[in-house]
Amino acid sequence: MTTTRREFLTASAIAGAALVSPAALAASTTKATIPMPKLQHHVFFWLKNPDSSADRAKLIAGVKSLAAIETVRSFHVGIPASTEKREVVDNSYHVSELLGFDDVAGQDAYQVHPLHKKFVDEHQHLWSKVVVYDALAVE
Amino acid sequence: MTTTRREFLTASAIAGAALVSPAALAASTTKATIPMPKLQHHVFFWLKNPDSSADRAKLIAGVKSLAAIETVRSFHVGIPASTEKREVVDNSYHVSELLGFDDVAGQDAYQVHPLHKKFVDEHQHLWSKVVVYDALAVE
Repeated sequence: MTTTRREFLTASAIAGAALVSPAALAASTTKATIPMPKLQHHVFFWLKNPDSSADRAKLIAGVKSLAAIETVRSFHVGIPASTEKREVVDNSYHVSELLGFDDVAGQDAYQVHPLHKKFVDEHQHLWSKVVVYDALAVE
Repeated sequence: MTTTRREFLTASAIAGAALVSPAALAASTTKATIPMPKLQHHVFFWLKNPDSSADRAKLIAGVKSLAAIETVRSFHVGIPASTEKREVVDNSYHVSELLGFDDVAGQDAYQVHPLHKKFVDEHQHLWSKVVVYDALAVE
């Protein structure tokens, strides 16, 4: 039964992928997973004033404006989740931004896009630290 | 006549493209549209022997086995992308694992899943450092 359900889900995932992007399809696995764009750009922000909910809301709104950039294929803005506080888990950041691109060129285009430059200009006074990870899918 | 034929061929090409690659249509929209699971669990691994391609391949294969866990909704295994080396970019890790879950409960179930425990048991000798970020989507 489990196998049958997995097969069904895999077929659904593949059908769904066809609506999205060939790069996402290429990055999909054999299981029931949502296909992900190949390049994942994950940014973690630490606020200067972590106790200011206004600052946090401002940063979140700013990050959301980035979803409109043409080469952005997937988008997730987050805050630390209430998962178990293990030693390896860094939950000290305040806001996260996870953007998916088809390739390095898509991310490069995003970096110099006017909407991204505007976001940095208007929000960089809010953060004290930023860490970025760019991960390219392996086959 | 030639023009007419060209028009016909162009129309056919467009129709064909839509059938073969709906991605082209999706890509022409202004926004990022792949729906992302709410909880994103991003793990970065630093290998004990970064120059060992065998160790890296073993770890990547191990990470891939995690996609079979039932609560995993999206899956991406990566290596540092060749994006611009800015000061804020940490490209010192060797392998990354990005898993999407519907909620914190899904991630909790994953942590205690036999396949995850087996992965840790069989691969933890390969890494010297692990950093985990759990990000929950904001509305």
